[in-house]
Amino acid sequence: MKTRFTLLKPAVALAALLSLLSLPALAETYTLKLAETWGPNSPILGDTTRHMAAMAEKMSGGRLRIRIDSSNKHKAPFGIFDMVKAGQYDMGHTASYYYKGKIPSAMYFTTVPFGMIAPEQYGWFYYGGGLELMEKAYAPYGVLSFPGGNTGNQMGGWFSKEINSVDDLKGLKMRTPGFAGEVMAELGVAVTNIAPGELYTSLERGTIDALEWVGPALDLPLGFHRIAPYYYSGWQEPAAEVQFLINQKSWEKLPEDLQEILRVAMRTAAYDMYAQSMDMNASAWDKMKEEYPSVEHKTFPPEVINALRQATEKLLDQEAAKDPLVKEIIDSQRAYLTKVRKWTNISDKAYLDSVAPQQ
Amino acid sequence: MKTRFTLLKPAVALAALLSLLSLPALAETYTLKLAETWGPNSPILGDTTRHMAAMAEKMSGGRLRIRIDSSNKHKAPFGIFDMVKAGQYDMGHTASYYYKGKIPSAMYFTTVPFGMIAPEQYGWFYYGGGLELMEKAYAPYGVLSFPGGNTGNQMGGWFSKEINSVDDLKGLKMRTPGFAGEVMAELGVAVTNIAPGELYTSLERGTIDALEWVGPALDLPLGFHRIAPYYYSGWQEPAAEVQFLINQKSWEKLPEDLQEILRVAMRTAAYDMYAQSMDMNASAWDKMKEEYPSVEHKTFPPEVINALRQATEKLLDQEAAKDPLVKEIIDSQRAYLTKVRKWTNISDKAYLDSVAPQQ
Repeated sequence: MKTRFTLLKPAVALAALLSLLSLPALAETYTLKLAETWGPNSPILGDTTRHMAAMAEKMSGGRLRIRIDSSNKHKAPFGIFDMVKAGQYDMGHTASYYYKGKIPSAMYFTTVPFGMIAPEQYGWFYYGGGLELMEKAYAPYGVLSFPGGNTGNQMGGWFSKEINSVDDLKGLKMRTPGFAGEVMAELGVAVTNIAPGELYTSLERGTIDALEWVGPALDLPLGFHRIAPYYYSGWQEPAAEVQFLINQKSWEKLPEDLQEILRVAMRTAAYDMYAQSMDMNASAWDKMKEEYPSVEHKTFPPEVINALRQATEKLLDQEAAKDPLVKEIIDSQRAYLTKVRKWTNISDKAYLDSVAPQQ
Repeated sequence: MKTRFTLLKPAVALAALLSLLSLPALAETYTLKLAETWGPNSPILGDTTRHMAAMAEKMSGGRLRIRIDSSNKHKAPFGIFDMVKAGQYDMGHTASYYYKGKIPSAMYFTTVPFGMIAPEQYGWFYYGGGLELMEKAYAPYGVLSFPGGNTGNQMGGWFSKEINSVDDLKGLKMRTPGFAGEVMAELGVAVTNIAPGELYTSLERGTIDALEWVGPALDLPLGFHRIAPYYYSGWQEPAAEVQFLINQKSWEKLPEDLQEILRVAMRTAAYDMYAQSMDMNASAWDKMKEEYPSVEHKTFPPEVINALRQATEKLLDQEAAKDPLVKEIIDSQRAYLTKVRKWTNISDKAYLDSVAPQQ
């Protein structure tokens, strides 16, 4: 290794010289305020903001600090975009699809029913034009956006009875929010919105017949496996990517090296969240089966999948017709999915099929 | 955003003060020499080292520079470990499994036949104890090791004839190196080693009947799709992770902030390589099918898969019996795979099955 003293741009150093002299240094530090949608000490999602902040602080030698406010502090879990836009917070950690009402195109950067799985979606974001489209969607609001972590494939939900046909969905009372709820409603499901704290009791008492939350890691603490016999594989969020949002003015105040430190810390934390989700979902599913061996994994029959898929494509076409940017995003995702899924099918899927236990 | 001047540890700054004065600063810069196994301008693999170096330089404001030597320069593509160990290079970018002869346990950190796919393997590395085991394997040599990027699932290879039974493998002349070659040999394959530059001609002239390289992105430039009718899905490298190696003394000379910058730059570059592989494999497979629509994707029949799997497990058991650390690693991977594959099967696999075109 060569170390040497060299002439650098003004914004860069002297750290080493001071280090040699063992003198404390006066340095300009930047503290960014971040609001997260999640509650305090939220597993996986909240871990990701703290992990990102810790990397940024360490890489910057303490010059970049991120102060995190959870939802108990700012009281606006679904107001993150507005607060970052207004400069009330410098940064946010949230999911784009909460802001569909304000940015019609935001939804597609989190997930799309029957869309890409996480590795495919990262291909699209970073090598297939996805990130540029997300930047385009947020730019008019003076907000920068970055992938913020993936939950992995989300489960279709907990059901108190088996779903063997499209008829079984008619009149079914189910908690499933957002776009997936709209699709379900097309098939006759009575979609209800229930506060998270009341979900368990509602399912237990039969007020609802089914509910969709996330996946094993985040479902386990809520205990649905104790009261629902069937856990269905999903179709509605094959890869849910949350987002980091940054107020553009706050970003521009940072020197270039700290911008890059922040960008890379967010990117790594996002990827790590996907690996952590993989790990925690695997452990949680194991634990559910251990505690309640009668919990049964199910997949929707082809008839139901096909009906859900048709309803999804119909709704996507309707959204695309309303907004040129939405159309551009949906077209980009569909084209990428067509290409990348062929590869997934002859690689990971073919391999997983070949080694799967005979069913 | 709050910016302020604050008292920091000696190793940290003054950058801001100098920036205000618009004075150039004298700073200690560190230049690390990195040797990569790959040739100059190697796609995907070489992209990853350059991408890592660019991030590290930008995050450090130029204080950390990485000078990359490709194999045309150092002439020792499979001597990276030795050169890093000896301090001839500070860093290396290579694949652990090239060093099986020197470190019996190294192989398992790249890939294992019938092992984990990439998202599962990242779960194991970062949340399942894999990274700690890799550190343990390299520590006796004064070398630090980090995941260095994933090619994704590798294909089983190009075949001039169909493989319908284990009998079809007997006497088959195939280029397939390393552990996979040993497994193939167990089943009667005549495993040959041929220099990369002669592979095309050997396959074209029938000197060999089959060969395994990587996957569409790296196979495409070699043109095998023009001369082999069958492209088989893989079993031997479900996720091939290459590695960054660092000489421990070189690492220890870096201040803490640059160590963290380097660590995070490597981690992000590695993840990015997996996303880039996904993207480039998808495009390359599309292009192969466009140029040669007759190229046929095949999967080995269950009889062949089962025989390959039994031979793999037998060889793994033999290796585990020879070396306690190898046993520890194999046990850890098998236990993790059992747990994580259950989750993959009810999430990504169930989803991919449900939306796959009817076959």
